[in-house]
Amino acid sequence: MSNPEIEAQLAPLRERVQEQGNLVRSLKEAGAAELDVKKAVAELKARKKLLEDKELALTPSVVSFDRAKMEDLLKRRFFYDQSFAIYGGITGQYDFGPMGCALKSNILSLWRQYFALEEQMLEVDCSILTPEPVLKASGHVERFADLMVKDVKTGECFRLDHLIKQALEKLSKAKEATPALQAECEDIIIKLDGLNKQELADVLAKYSIKSPLTGNDLTEPIEFNLMFATQIGPTGLVKGFLRPETAQGIFVNFKRLLEFNQGKLPFAVAQIGNSFRNEISPRSGLIRVREFTMAEIEHFCDPTQKDHPKFGNVKDEKMTLYSACNQMDGKSATQLAIGEAVSAKLVANETLGYYMARIQQFLLAIGIKPECLRFRQHMSNEMAHYACDCWDAEILTSYGWVECVGCADRSAYDLGQHTAATGVRLVAEKRLPAPKTVEVSEIVPNKQALGKTFKKEAKTITEALAKLSLEEISRAEQELNANGQYKLILADGNTHELAKDTISVKHSSKTVHVEEFIPSVVEPSFGIGRIMYALLEHSFQCREGDDQRCYFTLPPLVAPLKCSILPLSNNAEFQPYTKKLSSSFTKAELSHKVDDSSGSIGRRYARTDEIAIPYGITVDFDTLKEPHTVTLRDRNTMKQVRVGLEQVVGVVKDLATARTSWEQVVAQYPVFEQQEATK
Amino acid sequence: MSNPEIEAQLAPLRERVQEQGNLVRSLKEAGAAELDVKKAVAELKARKKLLEDKELALTPSVVSFDRAKMEDLLKRRFFYDQSFAIYGGITGQYDFGPMGCALKSNILSLWRQYFALEEQMLEVDCSILTPEPVLKASGHVERFADLMVKDVKTGECFRLDHLIKQALEKLSKAKEATPALQAECEDIIIKLDGLNKQELADVLAKYSIKSPLTGNDLTEPIEFNLMFATQIGPTGLVKGFLRPETAQGIFVNFKRLLEFNQGKLPFAVAQIGNSFRNEISPRSGLIRVREFTMAEIEHFCDPTQKDHPKFGNVKDEKMTLYSACNQMDGKSATQLAIGEAVSAKLVANETLGYYMARIQQFLLAIGIKPECLRFRQHMSNEMAHYACDCWDAEILTSYGWVECVGCADRSAYDLGQHTAATGVRLVAEKRLPAPKTVEVSEIVPNKQALGKTFKKEAKTITEALAKLSLEEISRAEQELNANGQYKLILADGNTHELAKDTISVKHSSKTVHVEEFIPSVVEPSFGIGRIMYALLEHSFQCREGDDQRCYFTLPPLVAPLKCSILPLSNNAEFQPYTKKLSSSFTKAELSHKVDDSSGSIGRRYARTDEIAIPYGITVDFDTLKEPHTVTLRDRNTMKQVRVGLEQVVGVVKDLATARTSWEQVVAQYPVFEQQEATK
Repeated sequence: MSNPEIEAQLAPLRERVQEQGNLVRSLKEAGAAELDVKKAVAELKARKKLLEDKELALTPSVVSFDRAKMEDLLKRRFFYDQSFAIYGGITGQYDFGPMGCALKSNILSLWRQYFALEEQMLEVDCSILTPEPVLKASGHVERFADLMVKDVKTGECFRLDHLIKQALEKLSKAKEATPALQAECEDIIIKLDGLNKQELADVLAKYSIKSPLTGNDLTEPIEFNLMFATQIGPTGLVKGFLRPETAQGIFVNFKRLLEFNQGKLPFAVAQIGNSFRNEISPRSGLIRVREFTMAEIEHFCDPTQKDHPKFGNVKDEKMTLYSACNQMDGKSATQLAIGEAVSAKLVANETLGYYMARIQQFLLAIGIKPECLRFRQHMSNEMAHYACDCWDAEILTSYGWVECVGCADRSAYDLGQHTAATGVRLVAEKRLPAPKTVEVSEIVPNKQALGKTFKKEAKTITEALAKLSLEEISRAEQELNANGQYKLILADGNTHELAKDTISVKHSSKTVHVEEFIPSVVEPSFGIGRIMYALLEHSFQCREGDDQRCYFTLPPLVAPLKCSILPLSNNAEFQPYTKKLSSSFTKAELSHKVDDSSGSIGRRYARTDEIAIPYGITVDFDTLKEPHTVTLRDRNTMKQVRVGLEQVVGVVKDLATARTSWEQVVAQYPVFEQQEATK
Repeated sequence: MSNPEIEAQLAPLRERVQEQGNLVRSLKEAGAAELDVKKAVAELKARKKLLEDKELALTPSVVSFDRAKMEDLLKRRFFYDQSFAIYGGITGQYDFGPMGCALKSNILSLWRQYFALEEQMLEVDCSILTPEPVLKASGHVERFADLMVKDVKTGECFRLDHLIKQALEKLSKAKEATPALQAECEDIIIKLDGLNKQELADVLAKYSIKSPLTGNDLTEPIEFNLMFATQIGPTGLVKGFLRPETAQGIFVNFKRLLEFNQGKLPFAVAQIGNSFRNEISPRSGLIRVREFTMAEIEHFCDPTQKDHPKFGNVKDEKMTLYSACNQMDGKSATQLAIGEAVSAKLVANETLGYYMARIQQFLLAIGIKPECLRFRQHMSNEMAHYACDCWDAEILTSYGWVECVGCADRSAYDLGQHTAATGVRLVAEKRLPAPKTVEVSEIVPNKQALGKTFKKEAKTITEALAKLSLEEISRAEQELNANGQYKLILADGNTHELAKDTISVKHSSKTVHVEEFIPSVVEPSFGIGRIMYALLEHSFQCREGDDQRCYFTLPPLVAPLKCSILPLSNNAEFQPYTKKLSSSFTKAELSHKVDDSSGSIGRRYARTDEIAIPYGITVDFDTLKEPHTVTLRDRNTMKQVRVGLEQVVGVVKDLATARTSWEQVVAQYPVFEQQEATK
């Protein structure tokens, strides 16, 4: 894979990454101040980016791809396009037309087969509108924000990092820019991701950056929460958000799902649905949008048992793994079987490894190019604080490496958060190897005395007492002994002084057979729009010698339509055959398109190629004769064979469901030789 | 169908409806004041409701259905349940658990086969977040509202009609209520739907209705828009709503879709997706919710050609039609073939009739009881003003007749509205029988003079002039001739005085070969949640003699899981067979459930019956012997047959896809006799 000439050019960049990687490591070992580590990491990321940009610039497939040409085709044949365009459109929102919608729906249906059906997952479908407390507990209300600045006069908003990048790029390209200024700007741009709010504000001030549209002054950086807010119900009092991910719907249903699974672990829950992020200034087409479809899996398991019964099935799957270590050492990704990666503890556990391998199998099955797929491990400083290990499936596109599937071991974080917020224990139980005796302390209320003193409050107090933690009970006991009373703090903040006559602390021992624990969660999370976009790029082609004749080589399994049916001309004799074929295709549940418009066969095939139809049938004069036959054409090779009218539906069905291949069909049926004329 | 005894009880009620129907007709003929007609219609509806309530009260299936028992099962086995329950829950929002989600997904996939694939519709997937101007044009911003009142102290909101109904019911049940008061209350309750805002306010005042929760005073009635509002983007300036229906996404893409269809009509577009309505006080379970899945079709056609090429396929389909006429005459619905209904002009056209028949075929295929399905025509006064004809597929449930699918001929309304709002002509073209010559008038700007006078405004003015209607051009010509200038009003309200030297009016004649027209739209619109709920009611059963053993008789095509696999006991010898069966089922894409928990076979079957699994396999001691066989059990009849281990997957596949029936299986395989013990 590696080319010595390219490697020679990359070597100095690799060295610089490694040097910085070592610095980060030594700072961490020495327990340096957090700020110093952060700065060193920012510089590390910057150097990594330089290395990666250079690598991509030297990769011919990426350089030669003509994005504008593909986007023109996608728009012209309405795979997808901007929403509400006749009203001026909204950035970051797209409508999927017939071909985009069918492609998406085929990808999702294959996803269901690969994951939900294969692993007998529990698939759920939860609400999009989510009340605020749920997203407070998950951390989204507080932390799910981007920095922006506003034009002080017009109120126009700009995402801060994008704005600075644009302004400094302009500045360094100006005629009067000195080499020193250029180097300074480049340095900041590279480190942008690592700068905090104050540092970004300083950059704004230092270069007097103004609104690029009006030249007006800008506000200080503002944190903007990326969730769409709304009111649920008419009172205006129940604040809600459109969910920013589908995962929370699964976590809040954990108890019901565990019960459905008869209390047994492990089990996995799947959900396909839309999520929403109010991006400040969305761009990059389908890669960064305000409304998107996700397919998420939450695999719940015992934290001490993360092996996977089916790991053996995938252990030899070769993966391109870009480990945190390699990233810090300036090395490339390496090829490794997932079994070895788990044995070597590079991938944290079998369950995580199993899903990574399955993600890869799925992505390759829908047509992602293997050489454009890698799994990148999060470096410890970019991983969410609760995750143990996290690998992103990244796909190489003309936008660079794009994160398309995240695969994280989130440990017990989410269930713990919702338990803390609601008091509902989201836990599982397991049988102990042997029963054990535990000491139990509880507060026993004296109902009569409590009722007398606290009247109707007594019930609330009794309930609160029953929920106290062991630590709190022992504190109560101390207080009662020391002061003769215990100060109970309720959830609403009210306090009550409970005297010795109203409560007592009771100790006893109990034999238990099971223990409770919070399950761990392994979460593969698929961004369907991003995967779709990458797939379109990977399958975009132009015919040799005719770069106006473009098409998509989408695999038949996911292609929007499976077959076209074209009568050679508008001769009335062809009609009954076309009709009969169409209705047999419908009966066989094969999506297809009849194109009986005028225009040469070649031209009509070019149109069906554009919408990725993998197979085409022509009804011609030979069809009219006994034995009735038609031609069957393959989009990718443009080769044709002659197949019996009665057999052709079965042949296409087998091709479309990957039960046979075009090569096998060519071997079985006579080849039909005829040039495709496009005029 | 009709029972003379029941008919005798209904006769007086029928008469009262007819009497009022005749009054409404005569008022309309006489051109009576709108208010008088409205009042008469309200009384008509009230009498219809009395008739219908009585009819239902006399229908044994509805009376005997135990809703609480079914809801308990749905909740216990997590078909669906209230969202965010651990956070206290939100009314009107539901999460679908594994069985509900699978049922929904199977219904949708059958829907795609019945409609999208069968008719080669263009399926699209459009944005949920919709900017305000789109919903202004569609009429939703102005008209999509319910009346509510608020508790003046707590701010608690009540939907006004529900509140009044509840208050008057309580009043008339009170001990001191006189018969006169009771009659008065009943009368108002019945007429509630027909009362306007002022009349409802008067009722509130007359009976001093207070908040049912606090006894506090209530505000005057307030119109509350049922759309969820949010801001798109960070500026706070772009107002958006969550779409209240999926249809608008199709209309705004009409041009792209027509082009995709190569400019030809008719064609139909389908969309499945979520819509949102911020109900004031949702209730009735899945029937009235805040977030719901719709499947909508917009069939675009030439308004002068509403015949349908496949109408012949359905013309003999017998339908239960409850025409507007019959409703006004107090008559029952009638049985009629759809072909006769269209010939008799009862149903407006073939296209509408075709969809009605297909809707019926679909609903029956998923398991709706034929005797609980009717198509009710909107009476002219309840139809949206733009619709020509509208029939609702109503399904009888314990909540009464529930509208589950609307099927309306919306004429050219929607495309016309969006054309008016955007200036983008959402029209189709058709070839004229012969070319014709038309007079063309246009305003020719004098660019130089315009530029000199209006500077940078000149461009806007030129664009506005190009968009003027013929009427406006002729008005401009008159003004120019009379006053030497023309006052142009721009879309933003600004006006410009254009003098004679800046513009002139040019007349010419042109030969045209095509004419433009706004297509008509026929819209079948499915409420998936409602259909699902009705289906669950229709398929809910308890075993004879054991009313604790309940189950759903969902047809295999839509049942969440197709088969269960149960080893007779936890004998280790059974395991390899269970595993092998499970993996063959996965390979055959058959959803299934292995239940190897302890508990008798009978008890485990009872559990699988609860979640509607239609077939069950037991691996027993005979399975271990050659030739290996298993038992196959049918949920509905509880009968079992003995089938070869190798054949059973194929048999279940054929059953699950309706290629064979249980009766045929019983005829082919030996019956296996053994009692199911539940203990």
